[in-house]
Formats: sequence, structure tokens, C-alpha cells
Amino acid sequence: MLKGKLQELIKGVRDNDRVLIGRALSLIESTLEADRKEARIILRELLTLSGNSIRLGITGVPGSGKSTFIESFGLRLCESGKKVAVLSIDPSSPVSKGSILGDKTRMEKLSKNQNAFIRPSPAGNMLGGIARNTREAIIILEAAGYDYIIIETVGVGQSEISVGDLVDVFVLVLISGAGDELQGIKKGIMEKAQLLLVNKSDGKNKEQAMRAKKSLENALSILYSNLSDQQPKVLAISSLGGNGIEVAEKEVNNLFERLKSSGQLEGNRFHQNAIWFDWEWKAQMEIIFRSNSKLLELKDNLLEQIENGEKDPFSAADELVEAFKANFLS
Amino acid sequence: MLKGKLQELIKGVRDNDRVLIGRALSLIESTLEADRKEARIILRELLTLSGNSIRLGITGVPGSGKSTFIESFGLRLCESGKKVAVLSIDPSSPVSKGSILGDKTRMEKLSKNQNAFIRPSPAGNMLGGIARNTREAIIILEAAGYDYIIIETVGVGQSEISVGDLVDVFVLVLISGAGDELQGIKKGIMEKAQLLLVNKSDGKNKEQAMRAKKSLENALSILYSNLSDQQPKVLAISSLGGNGIEVAEKEVNNLFERLKSSGQLEGNRFHQNAIWFDWEWKAQMEIIFRSNSKLLELKDNLLEQIENGEKDPFSAADELVEAFKANFLS
Repeated sequence: MLKGKLQELIKGVRDNDRVLIGRALSLIESTLEADRKEARIILRELLTLSGNSIRLGITGVPGSGKSTFIESFGLRLCESGKKVAVLSIDPSSPVSKGSILGDKTRMEKLSKNQNAFIRPSPAGNMLGGIARNTREAIIILEAAGYDYIIIETVGVGQSEISVGDLVDVFVLVLISGAGDELQGIKKGIMEKAQLLLVNKSDGKNKEQAMRAKKSLENALSILYSNLSDQQPKVLAISSLGGNGIEVAEKEVNNLFERLKSSGQLEGNRFHQNAIWFDWEWKAQMEIIFRSNSKLLELKDNLLEQIENGEKDPFSAADELVEAFKANFLS
Repeated sequence: MLKGKLQELIKGVRDNDRVLIGRALSLIESTLEADRKEARIILRELLTLSGNSIRLGITGVPGSGKSTFIESFGLRLCESGKKVAVLSIDPSSPVSKGSILGDKTRMEKLSKNQNAFIRPSPAGNMLGGIARNTREAIIILEAAGYDYIIIETVGVGQSEISVGDLVDVFVLVLISGAGDELQGIKKGIMEKAQLLLVNKSDGKNKEQAMRAKKSLENALSILYSNLSDQQPKVLAISSLGGNGIEVAEKEVNNLFERLKSSGQLEGNRFHQNAIWFDWEWKAQMEIIFRSNSKLLELKDNLLEQIENGEKDPFSAADELVEAFKANFLS
């Protein structure tokens, strides 16, 4: 038997009760052991209801107009009767209450739409934690009936697990400039994108945006040589003016439908889950390891010896594992 | 006191005795616990003598002419009095005795040069093992006085640890063709290369190679926008005819000197060692974990439940770690 509080939360999520969805999301964000246990129960109950959204990743440097795009794009979907949830992850700066308000202001119209739900990532030092929260939040929001889950990240910073391991379709938002279309974008991200949007293609910017589109297409044709069916499209759009948003929506839906009908979607999602599983249990094992202060100290010493050239990394690893065995295994 | 056999090996490596270098390399390739212990002793003794080579990674699809390039390039270096060692890694096919002979045939002139030493990777299922062997082989070959350690890999297949984490300078060898310069090359590899060589730029191929060079340069100028000092050079070369090999050598040396004088080399190498250390102790922890058949079975079951959508990856990870604790920790 489930506790009344948990039953209420589960029912609330299924009924798309925004207050209770928010509470469920707060529960999964908690790091308290008791909360984690309850979160696990809720996730287990809701898991069978999940899996029915288009999971969309949006990345771009600050200033590329990601939120303006998400607002235009999201409003279009909402007006056609779709339900849209937005999760933002910014690993480069812990999210404060201030930026939660900031997010709501950024997507003012979308945040007021009854078909939309916007949630910034909680503060947290561990990127793994944030990523885990996001993965679990997707389950909750899908069970709540959202048709599109949009995950917004800044394309900078480092991450062991990337947003590409969370979503079905991955979109890169760029702005035109004198040859610096990819300025600030993390290396390798262009090769993960399935769709590139050159934003702010309006007014006197338009010509420059078209040039940027052209040169990105050239670069992509090299990167995707002989794989023309996989080569991402580049669209010049104006999130403010609304130009190109419809085409972008069509392309996102096309990409998703192609994944679905080819069976790739199912494969991708299982593969992602397997990655999460593997990553998570290893992360937890590492926490067990790190909970031993003697081992932690030894590890630091060994790293210092490696830096000084006194020890090769493999002998150091052997030593650390021997110490682990001596401490933990009998 | 070291055993006579180990003393002999260590001295042999230092004296650049090819037979004993080969024996030392065989020792580090062994997975027997007793051999591993001896290997560790040898590595510890030789570590202080290592670090003085240019570690060069060469990647390209089969047929791009990597070995022909390495032969031309290596012979040039040998003739100018440098000592060159070549290690080949091919994770896609376990190396058989046949291909060891194959390697020698492929680089026939170089393998006969007294300043050169060629060694293919041993067979092995674990890529980690091969990578570890390569890392340790670098230490031995540097202690033996080689000035250039060339690590040849095929740029396909998957690898958790890439050759980029082994070397100082990373070169991609390509061949021209109708727009398919990157055909078969693993995604993301172009962004790791510090130098691109369009090989087989000779005879009637020359014009096509120059076109490929131009289009690669265009693609790179997009990927490296605003980072013009980091943008890799593209050279059209002919390994058979010898054209461009001298320029390639100069560029490799320039890249290395720039890394060295800026202090980046030292930083990179420490960073690589820290990665190896981290990767190795975690890999060993995983082996401990996997040595328990109950846990291994549970892990397979959990993965199946994830695939069937019965369990989310995080609850599954929690369950696995609980089982680990119950089995190992008291």
C-alpha cells in the first residue's frame, strides 16, 4: 500500500495538476535518502505512463536566442492543442531563485499558457545530479501528458553525459556573425545536432544569416559526406518575427517520425537507458569508494606522485585498488 | 634487489637492445598476475627515463595510406639520425600473427632500418587492455631512446579512451574522392586532429586532392571560427612520391614545439595521466564487481527490465548498488 501523500502525488501528476507536478519534481530533486525512496516509488508507478513525448534538446550559446525560439516554438504547439514542458539545464551556473524568476520572465507568454509547463533545473554542483534529475523529470512530465519535452542547455561547459543522451531530437541554435557562427560552442556539438537554426534572421541581419546558413551547409556536407540522408538541415529563422518557426516545427516532427517508423527511436531510447544505468551505478560505486577518507587521501597522494613523474598512472591505480580490497573486501 | 632477469630487461631497454625491448613489451602485454607484478617493477624503473619523445597519433580509414605515410615519414626521420618507434592499434580486428607479419611487410623499408622499431598491438578483446598496453609501451620505448613514437590507429570503431589521450600531436590521413573525404571516419575525429593530410596527391589524383584540401579548409574554418591560431593545417601529400612529407614533418615539429614552449605539453601529459589513472582504477573496480556472479546476473536481469520498460535506469542502479553493499560491505 502506498502512503496517502504518494498516492496523491501520483494521481496529481496523472491529472496534470500543476501544483502537484511541481511537488513531484521537487521530490525527485531532493538528495535526502527518505525522499529518494519516495521518488523511486513514484517513478516506478509513473514509468508505464511515460515514453509518449517528443523529447527535444535545444542548445546554443547565451545570446543565440534559445528562449525566444522556445517561446515562439512552444506557443505554436500550444495553440495547436499540444502540451509543452520546458526544462532548462545550465551547468555553468547554479540556478538561483533569481534565475527561476528569470526563466519565467524570459518565456513570459509561454509560462502563462495553460498548455505549457516551465521548470528550470535546481541548483547543484554535481552535473550528474542535474542530469539524473532531468532524466527523472522527463518520466514525470510524460506521465502528466506533455507531448513535447523541451530540454534547454547552454552548449558550453563540460559534461560526461550530454543532452544527446537524454533526447530524441537535438537542435542547435546559432546566430550569424562574421564567420563566428560556432563561436563559444563546445567542440563536437555540431556533429550531434540533427537540425541547425540560424536565429535572428530578420531586418538587416537577414542577408548575413543566409550567408551563415550557406557556409554551415558547406561545412556539414564535408562532415556528412556520403551520408546525405543524415545530413542535418540548416534553417534561417526569426524567433521574434516568427519566420521559419513553422518550418522548424515540421522538420522536428519529420525527424521524430523518421526515427519512430524506422524503429530507431526505440533502439535509441533503450540505448540511452542502458547508458544511464551504467553511469549511475558506477557513480554510486564511486560514492561508496569516496566515503572512505583513507582511500581518498591515498588517491590524492597518488595523483601528486603522477604529476611529479614519480609514478605511472597504472601502478598508481593498482595501488589504489589494492588498498580498496584491503579496506573493504575480506 | 631486483631479480637478475628484470635487471637484464631494464638494462637491455636502456641500451636499446631490440630483442630485450621486444621481451619487455611482451611482458607488459601479459595478463598473468605474476607478469603484471614484474611489469610494474620495470615500468617504475624506466619511468624516470621516459617523457622525451614526440608522441604522434596517426589515424585514417583503411586504404588512406597511413602505413605508406608512416614509412615515408619514418624513413625521413631515421635518415636524419632520429630514432622512430611505431605502434599500431586496430581495435576492429584482433591482431593475429598473420597481421604482425603483414605490418612488417607494409612498412618493409622502415622495419629494416636500424633506427626504427615497429610493433603491432597484441590481440585482445578488451580495448582498455590494448590502450593500457600502448600507454605502457610508450614508457618502455621512450626509455629505450626513441625520439618519435608513432601510434597508428584506424579511425573507426568505438573507444572509451581515444588515441587523443595517448599522444601529443594527432594527425588525420585522408584521401580525396568525390566529396567523400571523411567517409568512414568516426564522427568527431576531425575536431581532434591538429593536422590533416590529404594523401595520394600524385599523378591524375593531384587536382582532386587539391580540391579536397580546399573543401576541408572551408569546413575547418567554420569549425574553428575565431580560433584561427588553433585551426589545423591541411596538406596535400604523396607518401609514395615523397611530396609534402618534408612539410608534414616541419608542421609536426612546429606543433610539438609550440605545445612545449607554451607549457601546454606538460599540462596535457599530466591531464592524460590523470585520465588514465582514473580510468584504470575504475576499470579494476568494475572487474572486482564483475567477479561476483550473483551481481553479474542481477545486472543482466535489471538491464532486461529496463529494456522492457519495467524499470527506470536509476531505480535499477540503486538496486544493483544495494546488492553490492549487501554482498561486499559489512
